[in-house]
Amino acid sequence: MTDLNPADLRLLSHTTSDGVTTRELVLGEVTAALWAPEHAAPGTPLVLLGHGGGRQHRHHPAMSGRARLLTDVGFRAVALDVDGHGPRPRTPDDEEEVAVLHAARRAGEPIGPIVERYNADLARRTVPEWRALLAGLLAVPEIGDAPVGYWGITLGTAIGVPLVAEEPLIQAAAFGLFWPSTLVEAARRITVPIEFDLQWDDEQIPREGGLALFDAFASTQKSLHVNAGKHMELPRFEAASAVRFFERHLRP
Amino acid sequence: MTDLNPADLRLLSHTTSDGVTTRELVLGEVTAALWAPEHAAPGTPLVLLGHGGGRQHRHHPAMSGRARLLTDVGFRAVALDVDGHGPRPRTPDDEEEVAVLHAARRAGEPIGPIVERYNADLARRTVPEWRALLAGLLAVPEIGDAPVGYWGITLGTAIGVPLVAEEPLIQAAAFGLFWPSTLVEAARRITVPIEFDLQWDDEQIPREGGLALFDAFASTQKSLHVNAGKHMELPRFEAASAVRFFERHLRP
Repeated sequence: MTDLNPADLRLLSHTTSDGVTTRELVLGEVTAALWAPEHAAPGTPLVLLGHGGGRQHRHHPAMSGRARLLTDVGFRAVALDVDGHGPRPRTPDDEEEVAVLHAARRAGEPIGPIVERYNADLARRTVPEWRALLAGLLAVPEIGDAPVGYWGITLGTAIGVPLVAEEPLIQAAAFGLFWPSTLVEAARRITVPIEFDLQWDDEQIPREGGLALFDAFASTQKSLHVNAGKHMELPRFEAASAVRFFERHLRP
Repeated sequence: MTDLNPADLRLLSHTTSDGVTTRELVLGEVTAALWAPEHAAPGTPLVLLGHGGGRQHRHHPAMSGRARLLTDVGFRAVALDVDGHGPRPRTPDDEEEVAVLHAARRAGEPIGPIVERYNADLARRTVPEWRALLAGLLAVPEIGDAPVGYWGITLGTAIGVPLVAEEPLIQAAAFGLFWPSTLVEAARRITVPIEFDLQWDDEQIPREGGLALFDAFASTQKSLHVNAGKHMELPRFEAASAVRFFERHLRP
């Protein structure tokens, strides 16, 4: 990991479609995308979108879909590619972790310990990248001194919890669907408003684990949304709920 | 308790203000209020509003406020006065239960066992009243064959859970803030979509009790909304969430 200088942020191509401007960003090895309502003013709220694991990346439909919900309410959104995802190559260690994970899944063994370990490593790499990217973005005059939120589930929570614990500019965060053990310590340092999603019949994450992680946040304003269903069955209406959460807390 | 004949339902005075028509209803000893958007068509969704305990009644601001949220999305709402509430006199047994409850509260003793016992008694009296009132309302041509929901927390849940378990016309229900022991058996018979509110720092209802009641519902579509805060601190945005829940499930 090289030290990133926020001033090196480059805003590359941009396209505008259906009232939304999408820009490609580069900061060192970090690739990212920024969505904004056309003609958004400086100070428009900005939500950092953390993508999930596996084959997800900055332009995965889960990211562009959430970005669209946010631009629909007048907000900006930004997603970066976590190291080893999208165009960013996996290291041999990454390949090894992914192979171990796939083998455990095929064998029907618990994947929790593997995902927790691997995602904690990705978090160590990604938190400084997010912080540098955020500092670079807020220095762009057209973005300006914006209220900032963070939204990510699964891997996006594994990275987001330590990020929000460290980054004082983030004023509200939506998380969900992760095990507690590697995150509880950071969660105890988070005091900004939280919305957290948990699946009641999650076949990977024990119910008590999700409740323990929610319990750990020090935030006086925190909401837990539990839905019946398995890990992959988070209802789509929870995305709209997260957007309303950010509207309550980031709208100036 | 006398047997009620739905055909005896009388629609008394009505007033229209700000696009909402409010009607006073009487069925035997039961007093109720019905709110509707002016010119609402037959078949407009109807939500039964169960008021809370203590000094609440059909025209308590918590009821008229929820009714307003529902008429704002084009729905009808109806609230009845539970026996011993509003204009309906308390029996000597009711007075005794209320006195015991107040004494326990003053002494700082747990009120759960008293509230559960008293509210179970009120539920036995009120469930047949709700069912007769609903049958009477659906027989009114201007109301017609409407999709029906039920919404009530605290006492409204103590009455609503056995009501929804027994009344097949109710297609969705929003509940919250009650102990499990008197309700779990009925909850296990409920299969319609549920939204349930629980306060994470409830000083009256143990956290595990609220989770156990949510767990008991047999519904394949059920959502639990937990918020940081004490019993009386349920955030106002949960009312808007319940309205969206009814829109998802009752909108034809």
